[in-house]
Amino acid sequence: MIYAKDNADFKFRRLRAVKEDLNSGAATLARKTLEDIIDFADGCEAEDTAELVRELTDLATQLGEARPSMVAVRNALQRWTSCLEHLPQEDLKAARGEAQVAAEEVIEELRQSRLLAVQECMKELKDGMTIMTHSTSSTVMALFSACYQAGIKLEAIITESRPGMEGRKLARFLNKMAVPTQFISEAQMAYFVPQADKVIVGADSLLRDGTLVNKAGSRLLALAARDSGVPFWVLAESFKHSLTAAEDVVLEEMPTEEMQLEPLGSVQVRNIYFDLVPARLITAWVNEQGVRVEFQSLAEASRAPLLGRD
Amino acid sequence: MIYAKDNADFKFRRLRAVKEDLNSGAATLARKTLEDIIDFADGCEAEDTAELVRELTDLATQLGEARPSMVAVRNALQRWTSCLEHLPQEDLKAARGEAQVAAEEVIEELRQSRLLAVQECMKELKDGMTIMTHSTSSTVMALFSACYQAGIKLEAIITESRPGMEGRKLARFLNKMAVPTQFISEAQMAYFVPQADKVIVGADSLLRDGTLVNKAGSRLLALAARDSGVPFWVLAESFKHSLTAAEDVVLEEMPTEEMQLEPLGSVQVRNIYFDLVPARLITAWVNEQGVRVEFQSLAEASRAPLLGRD
Repeated sequence: MIYAKDNADFKFRRLRAVKEDLNSGAATLARKTLEDIIDFADGCEAEDTAELVRELTDLATQLGEARPSMVAVRNALQRWTSCLEHLPQEDLKAARGEAQVAAEEVIEELRQSRLLAVQECMKELKDGMTIMTHSTSSTVMALFSACYQAGIKLEAIITESRPGMEGRKLARFLNKMAVPTQFISEAQMAYFVPQADKVIVGADSLLRDGTLVNKAGSRLLALAARDSGVPFWVLAESFKHSLTAAEDVVLEEMPTEEMQLEPLGSVQVRNIYFDLVPARLITAWVNEQGVRVEFQSLAEASRAPLLGRD
Repeated sequence: MIYAKDNADFKFRRLRAVKEDLNSGAATLARKTLEDIIDFADGCEAEDTAELVRELTDLATQLGEARPSMVAVRNALQRWTSCLEHLPQEDLKAARGEAQVAAEEVIEELRQSRLLAVQECMKELKDGMTIMTHSTSSTVMALFSACYQAGIKLEAIITESRPGMEGRKLARFLNKMAVPTQFISEAQMAYFVPQADKVIVGADSLLRDGTLVNKAGSRLLALAARDSGVPFWVLAESFKHSLTAAEDVVLEEMPTEEMQLEPLGSVQVRNIYFDLVPARLITAWVNEQGVRVEFQSLAEASRAPLLGRD
């Protein structure tokens, strides 16, 4: 438990950590920001509940805006925010506790929705299938785990994912389950995709019309999959659904130092981390409700209220 | 001038160098192998012309097989080989000299054919155009140089080209001519290609039906270009034309250490350096004869004989 003596300092450090966390996918980062909320609700300086609510709201807003390409972070925080109006006004300590419990509940909802989506996806997989993916998604990792535990033997084709190289983490993860895996550079994706039975990628966000926001390179893989007649599936729980339209999306650009090119006057290094994959390139969307060949946004779907539900 | 005391040792060292030269394109490597021929013709151990011819033929055959994806190397060496039957049988010193002159002539033919192809391509370029390319081709570099000298101001979008990172060399080259350049990872190609007026790539080989053999990632770029309606041009002098069919091509796989993943029992690192881009994804082929929207193989086109032409 972190006691922040100085609220501003805690927020500054956590925001920076979230902005610099380029290895976590959207679901993982959503959980981490809720854990930040739990820490802050416990330890932040506040005279009364009203001040606690102001401080927590401010942190949640800033965390929600820190990584615009990852809508699950904002959705999870907004979901949690609905608890704030029910906090006991006259009991600061109880208010802190309830804010924490509400965040724990959202973390559990995130976990459950991922588990359900993974189970729906697993129903369509069979022994001996080769699954290709790009970058690393904790949901896709959970899918490989679930298949392993269910005795479904898969093979994998995975990418290193330059510049973050998060594919190495996935390689180590699959190796522990002895999944026969081919590890390639992004440049080789078109060559290898015909060997796959399906491409399955996670999502940073799914937009209103089913457009996928995911790690740069996802659009190339979708194009190559279509050209080779290999299905391209997106596995993404509904927390990743957004009401944003594709034309309004801001794709995050990360520090260009990652590309390790020395400064050259007329050369601008670009490091846009995300790609938009239009719905027309996606064969199926998988969420808690099953595998769907037409996208149905669940961004507005009602969930049971947090707290105060009696 | 390198005097090889031991013919076998010279061949061994040169073959290894050619196999390990992963930064040179096909035209550059063709020139380098001809320079090896010149050195060897000068310094190899031989009792008479017959032995010289045997030794040179053996070196040329081995060099021609060292990099199967680069047909220009084999074509250039075969072109040179035609001089061997005209070497003076009774004068070893003169035979050495003529073999060298013939190699110089092929080097000059390589240079001229590239220059002509570049000039044909340049006719279609205008001030302010943005050219996107992938990996580094000495022919595409020559195109940028020629445009610079002709006062045609281009902008560029280039890739780093993992794992060889030869894109960095191109970035430095363009920087010297102050070409405004965006430098990206392969993963970002689909995002950036709509900003280009044309994609222009070089070639390691062009097959019988117009299929392009080029650095891995070229097929992804061609798919992205087509999807965005951006023309995809191949700039390749006729020395790169091959009679091989696409189904007979062996794509070279390079040492997997380049991918820098620690050994993992179930993970096989793959490092296939080349891609096949089918003719249907290519908008135009540019060679010494101009810009063509239908591919015409020049692999069998007759060239003036080397030596003995009186």
